[in-house]
Amino acid sequence: MAATGTETKDLDSHHKNRLVQLSNPHVANMKEDVLYHFSLSTSTHDFPAMFGDVKFVCVGGSPSRMLTFIKYVAKELGLSHPGDEYPNICSGTDRYAMYKVGPVLSVSHGMGIPSIAIMLHELIKLLFHAGCSNVTVIRIGTSGGIGLEPGSVVITRQAMDACFNPEFEHIVLGKRVVRSTDLDEGLAQELLHCSTDLSEFTTVVGNTMCTLDFYEGQGRLDGALCTYTEKDKQAYLQAAHAAGIRNIEMESSVFAAMCSACGLRAAVVCVTLLDRLLGDQISSPHEVLAEYQQRPQRLVGHFIKKSLAPA
Amino acid sequence: MAATGTETKDLDSHHKNRLVQLSNPHVANMKEDVLYHFSLSTSTHDFPAMFGDVKFVCVGGSPSRMLTFIKYVAKELGLSHPGDEYPNICSGTDRYAMYKVGPVLSVSHGMGIPSIAIMLHELIKLLFHAGCSNVTVIRIGTSGGIGLEPGSVVITRQAMDACFNPEFEHIVLGKRVVRSTDLDEGLAQELLHCSTDLSEFTTVVGNTMCTLDFYEGQGRLDGALCTYTEKDKQAYLQAAHAAGIRNIEMESSVFAAMCSACGLRAAVVCVTLLDRLLGDQISSPHEVLAEYQQRPQRLVGHFIKKSLAPA
Repeated sequence: MAATGTETKDLDSHHKNRLVQLSNPHVANMKEDVLYHFSLSTSTHDFPAMFGDVKFVCVGGSPSRMLTFIKYVAKELGLSHPGDEYPNICSGTDRYAMYKVGPVLSVSHGMGIPSIAIMLHELIKLLFHAGCSNVTVIRIGTSGGIGLEPGSVVITRQAMDACFNPEFEHIVLGKRVVRSTDLDEGLAQELLHCSTDLSEFTTVVGNTMCTLDFYEGQGRLDGALCTYTEKDKQAYLQAAHAAGIRNIEMESSVFAAMCSACGLRAAVVCVTLLDRLLGDQISSPHEVLAEYQQRPQRLVGHFIKKSLAPA
Repeated sequence: MAATGTETKDLDSHHKNRLVQLSNPHVANMKEDVLYHFSLSTSTHDFPAMFGDVKFVCVGGSPSRMLTFIKYVAKELGLSHPGDEYPNICSGTDRYAMYKVGPVLSVSHGMGIPSIAIMLHELIKLLFHAGCSNVTVIRIGTSGGIGLEPGSVVITRQAMDACFNPEFEHIVLGKRVVRSTDLDEGLAQELLHCSTDLSEFTTVVGNTMCTLDFYEGQGRLDGALCTYTEKDKQAYLQAAHAAGIRNIEMESSVFAAMCSACGLRAAVVCVTLLDRLLGDQISSPHEVLAEYQQRPQRLVGHFIKKSLAPA
């Protein structure tokens, strides 16, 4: 235990004053930077004053879930007061929603790699313009599980593509570019410890497959298009399981790649809404799904509280 | 003119009683179909009663823009009454918003190929379960132009990928599958005629490049990551222009591929918010951008009104 404590302190000092960096030399020469999809601009908003104290950014697909999260975190950190409201910082647009309390920013990202990528480009620039340092970014989301009891939480070891490679491939100026999808191993372990502290639900560390489609792209049989059989689907999902994949979602690879490229400590924590080996449809009762969706929030809320506690 | 009229009638009779079809034999065997991201299910909602009369589906990224559109179309078609409200049919979720008036359905799809693909899988199944026939689907969106005055509207001839191929490539069960991105040529011409009728803004028919990213994927210099120069960017955009590409957005290829695979007549109508040869940032005043965004709505509203007018 003492040894772990020392390691954590070393990590802490390593992260001290680690400023958010861009991987783009052009931005420094811009007089104004319009973050169009946030409806924020460096010429109309004081980013250092608004966001300079941010240390934790939590992102998730659904805007209403990210509002629920900021309220939950405010309470957990003792920063909420009766009647407090959490105005949407991006109220000038309906592309994304953003909320803040103390050192925690909560941002929605919609569904899929392109949608979260737009948000991350603008988020990382926001943190850079604000002069933020030592920021941890965690995606809290939903996913389909492979061989796990529904409601289990998966902390991502590696984000993999639909061919089970730990890579994010995209096209830049017409040419294929491949980036690694490394996530912070120490952070994943810290989050796993938090789940042990809570002891409320099953949590595993496993690989996460990130696809560009929810239906055919994840081997579902219930989309508008499908050209394969149940047997083909089972073979694919079993091969994924053999590659260490425990859940499937649609944002982790670009999230890992972009955070890694900009030196941000990052993790992905997703609850599984169903076991894909047993079916495709998400048909559990609303209350059950709603409780599942709170699990990554409770886990990450606990992590933030623990991180901020005096040593 | 008489000849054109005859051609239109032949087209009309060709489309008569053309039922919406799925390209998936499994759905017919399902007892219940939960359209999870719409928060609708065949066991709790009467799809034929709710949607059986739909003939036009308009889709766009932003939920608030799709609400604006349904109000506009209701007025144009003489179906609005003072105090009318348009409840969100998908109010059980915040993934997508859906509105209906008469034969027109208006649905938001978020940003990017994965987001619109999820919506289209569930939309096409919705139309199938409802027994709809002769449905036209039009995406009304925003885009970056290439060599066009901002505010110009582009009707897509062909949707192309970031390598200028008229293809949509995706991964199914770990294997690359390529689909064509054909759109209805006759419908594109009809829409162009509608723009001539209106005579309010410049409209062209051109190719549309569909990318998986807004920043690096479209050659922007202002993202959090960028590894190329202004010169590289200009060369890429000029090559796109030489391939007949007049605008860039993030949904048209999968939209064209899925509608075509399911026999739906489809078109893409996007306004250009800036000329990408001259810059990357969308920094026009809010009122100017708001007026631009109404242009595809006015064009498509006119088209629907004209299509429904007695011969």
